[in-house]
Amino acid sequence: MNVARVHDQSYVTLATNENYALGALTLGSSLRNSNTNRSLTVLITSQVPSPLVDQLRTVFDLVELVDVLDSNDSANLALLKRPELGVTFTKLHCWRLVQFSKCVFLDSDCLVVKNSDDLFDNDEFTAVTDIGWPDCFNSGVFVFRPSLQTYSSLLTYAVQQGSFDGGDQGLLNSFFPNWKRASFVYNMTTNASYSYAPAYKQFKDSVRIVHFIGAQKPWYHSYNLDSGSVMGNVTVHESELINQWWKVFVDNVLPGLNEETVS
Amino acid sequence: MNVARVHDQSYVTLATNENYALGALTLGSSLRNSNTNRSLTVLITSQVPSPLVDQLRTVFDLVELVDVLDSNDSANLALLKRPELGVTFTKLHCWRLVQFSKCVFLDSDCLVVKNSDDLFDNDEFTAVTDIGWPDCFNSGVFVFRPSLQTYSSLLTYAVQQGSFDGGDQGLLNSFFPNWKRASFVYNMTTNASYSYAPAYKQFKDSVRIVHFIGAQKPWYHSYNLDSGSVMGNVTVHESELINQWWKVFVDNVLPGLNEETVS
Ligand SMILES: O=c1ccn([C@@H]2O[C@H](COP(=O)(O)OP(=O)(O)O)[C@@H](O)[C@H]2O)c(=O)[nH]1
Ligand SMILES: O=c1ccn([C@@H]2O[C@H](COP(=O)(O)OP(=O)(O)O)[C@@H](O)[C@H]2O)c(=O)[nH]1
Ligand SMILES: [Mn+2]
Ligand SMILES: [Mn+2]
Repeated sequence: MNVARVHDQSYVTLATNENYALGALTLGSSLRNSNTNRSLTVLITSQVPSPLVDQLRTVFDLVELVDVLDSNDSANLALLKRPELGVTFTKLHCWRLVQFSKCVFLDSDCLVVKNSDDLFDNDEFTAVTDIGWPDCFNSGVFVFRPSLQTYSSLLTYAVQQGSFDGGDQGLLNSFFPNWKRASFVYNMTTNASYSYAPAYKQFKDSVRIVHFIGAQKPWYHSYNLDSGSVMGNVTVHESELINQWWKVFVDNVLPGLNEETVS
Repeated sequence: MNVARVHDQSYVTLATNENYALGALTLGSSLRNSNTNRSLTVLITSQVPSPLVDQLRTVFDLVELVDVLDSNDSANLALLKRPELGVTFTKLHCWRLVQFSKCVFLDSDCLVVKNSDDLFDNDEFTAVTDIGWPDCFNSGVFVFRPSLQTYSSLLTYAVQQGSFDGGDQGLLNSFFPNWKRASFVYNMTTNASYSYAPAYKQFKDSVRIVHFIGAQKPWYHSYNLDSGSVMGNVTVHESELINQWWKVFVDNVLPGLNEETVS
């Protein structure tokens, strides 16, 4: 396939530590496998170990160092029982990538299973329904337009209004009330595979991006290299999806890691 | 409040047996309590016990007897070979209510907690996101335009294509792919109260229609009349909602039931 590169548009992800960097490497590899013609950018913080930063440079066109932003909103985060999500405010840095005219942000716990470049046909702010409260979008995948002014407005808004869920999702939903809706196939959160099984069966072949939301990230599962299968207590549909993630990880990421890097 | 009645528009529900008739009575009472200015219609089958039919007449303007399976035309005859679509078929009867220019269908396991008449500002086909697979709508609440032609097309489609989930929801989603989306507050399925708790906290006061999807219908719970509270193993948010249902049932429906009617 002959793909004309589009240099002023980029997929963007974020990794503030080693584990999420493994996610970003797997996501980046899945994007390469999907034959995207857009640039790949990863935002990292100084906690990411430097051998992993080197490996990120082999997959991503741009590796950008940023500071951690924290919502300091422990009351709301406590509601979600996910105190570690405060760090996701760091996501807001993506609006500073003004060398690009348009970007698609992807959480680093996403896996691109089919080319998703037509997401770039949409404008800011386009996202996918959150299945927890479906008038909201899930902030794991979104189309945005980098702008220092938007970045500054977002920070002001965050400080003045906070976030109703203590994370970037609550903030972005309040800030972009007139968001446009893309199909669920661009951000299929894995719990959907069992919450409405006949629909999953009907539509799974059209899924383009799988998003492993929740505390049980694929990289925390044990994986049997010989059988090519995840071990432990997960549903059949979930294990199929986690195996897909591990296949990309084993084929594309693992060979680049050395023993000192990851235990 | 002085409400001008709109006689050519109606809320429509369905009850094929005693339990769902208790649901319909509670739903109908909640609609009256919401000061709706639309008519109330209930479709029933012959399985609904006659004292309950009498009581339904005190709440609903129109009580319409329909058959579970009807063999008056060829499409219906073909449907006889698909017994699993029987319940689906029964809901489709609502399109035959051509005395109305527009209707809102509500499952009888819904409870209207705030006036929802502005649903009638929408046209066919308007519905609310299903949180199982959010490119689909949930078929518990929808705006439609009665039409014998649509009714017949739906039957033909049901016979020829079936339903990807075996129920009316799969059928209607395939038949109305260009449906319009109403806010989740018009069909808040009860599981949403715990799947994204901060959003529920943020938006619960704007909820207008609660929908008790799933096998655990409110009428199957045990309720303590003295404490005004449901008993058993449910989450706090769910029990709040089930208590709301029971309050309407106890205040508006129970006094009309006599011992012979319901055990
Ligand atoms: O400690 C963290 C937590 C989050 N993230 C980034 O923020 C995103 C959102 O967090 P997460 O995916 O864990 O949230 P969920 O999708 O489970 O709600 C991640 O995908 C990462 O890109 C990160 O880099 N370090
Ligand atoms: O035995 C039945 C099953 C269903 N219904 C009607 O069909 C609707 C849809 O079924 P249900 O609400 O049980 O499905 P859910 O919303 O749980 O998916 C009900 O609300 C009733 O109006 C009925 O009358 N009798
Ligand atoms: Mn995520
Ligand atoms: Mn229902």
